[in-house]
Amino acid sequence: MKRIPEVTVERLIKYLRFVEEMEKDGMRNLTAKQIAESLGLNPHLVRKDLAYFGQFGKRGKGYETEKLGETLRKIMGLDKRWKVALVGVGNLGSALLRYPGFKERGFDVVCAFDTSPQKIGRQIEDIKIESMDKMEEIVSKENIKIAILSIPKEAAEEVSDRLVKAGVMGILNFAPRYLQYSYPFRVLNVDLSLYLESLTFYLENDGKKNLSM
Amino acid sequence: MKRIPEVTVERLIKYLRFVEEMEKDGMRNLTAKQIAESLGLNPHLVRKDLAYFGQFGKRGKGYETEKLGETLRKIMGLDKRWKVALVGVGNLGSALLRYPGFKERGFDVVCAFDTSPQKIGRQIEDIKIESMDKMEEIVSKENIKIAILSIPKEAAEEVSDRLVKAGVMGILNFAPRYLQYSYPFRVLNVDLSLYLESLTFYLENDGKKNLSM
Repeated sequence: MKRIPEVTVERLIKYLRFVEEMEKDGMRNLTAKQIAESLGLNPHLVRKDLAYFGQFGKRGKGYETEKLGETLRKIMGLDKRWKVALVGVGNLGSALLRYPGFKERGFDVVCAFDTSPQKIGRQIEDIKIESMDKMEEIVSKENIKIAILSIPKEAAEEVSDRLVKAGVMGILNFAPRYLQYSYPFRVLNVDLSLYLESLTFYLENDGKKNLSM
Repeated sequence: MKRIPEVTVERLIKYLRFVEEMEKDGMRNLTAKQIAESLGLNPHLVRKDLAYFGQFGKRGKGYETEKLGETLRKIMGLDKRWKVALVGVGNLGSALLRYPGFKERGFDVVCAFDTSPQKIGRQIEDIKIESMDKMEEIVSKENIKIAILSIPKEAAEEVSDRLVKAGVMGILNFAPRYLQYSYPFRVLNVDLSLYLESLTFYLENDGKKNLSM
């Protein structure tokens, strides 16, 4: 059994974003070709990706936009809301607690933890900051499966081990330490430099007239 | 002339990360097949992506790891250092100023701007926070081409317009407002929810035994 590669999942997310945009624009039907063109992909690949999850397109007609959106949300687990724990309420953690995009996409940060006595008991955006001593208890009681780590790298491994033992299955890691867990646990290690690297590609190459693919 | 699609640039970045990992591990040669397998891609696609930038692989032998890394860094504009301006020193901006990954990848945040009198004149990681009134002057004097925006969405458009007029070509936008400029300017709008969405895909599907591709 081959596992679904990360690049495929990234494509599915992009399909969904595009489909939702088209839904807002009132497009009732979409073809694999249109999706492919908007993302610079091969239509064959788009058809293959989507066909894997069942036959929901019609030959020659493409996909119903609304149904495709629903199906993709279901495939991605985005047809329901997810509870999220945030660990580490420093600068980045505070910013993430205030980040409006999570709620919009179905993610509710329901608890936040820190070690600093100055922070424990304070509240950000309706979330009371709790002591990390209570982390396992709360995460397990609330049945939380996703955690965001915004802590110093020195603490990353210990804290993520504790989260996994408390029932967390997926970790979004902003700590600059590469974390890895074997199946069925998942870690996404965020590397913000990647964004700058794709910017420089364009800055470096946009001036070159002969650049085409 | 077709433009290089974003997904291709993302693949190039991934190739480079993998090649650098293999370089560290002492692998002197790499085949397109090895790169493809590590990323869940088709070897044909990897060969096509790389061949576009010149023939630097050898038939049957693959690529010299070191040379491939050098070439990719050059293609991506990562063979030199880039000066970066950061605008908005709130929670997220402060976290980004302290983010060690930028410097490691060749990006030097050399100036930071804010509107708050409490912040102007203060220093974070050797960077003195300047008034936004001085933004154009400093950005243009320092010949800065890249800016990171971590400001409220209400200010995003006005500030990015000012940056572009001052000579900035690429903007990494963390403000939750979609920004767009036409060629040759580039904006990357960061959506941190995307990370959570790919986590939920796995959490949703890992339990399904028949999931394979």
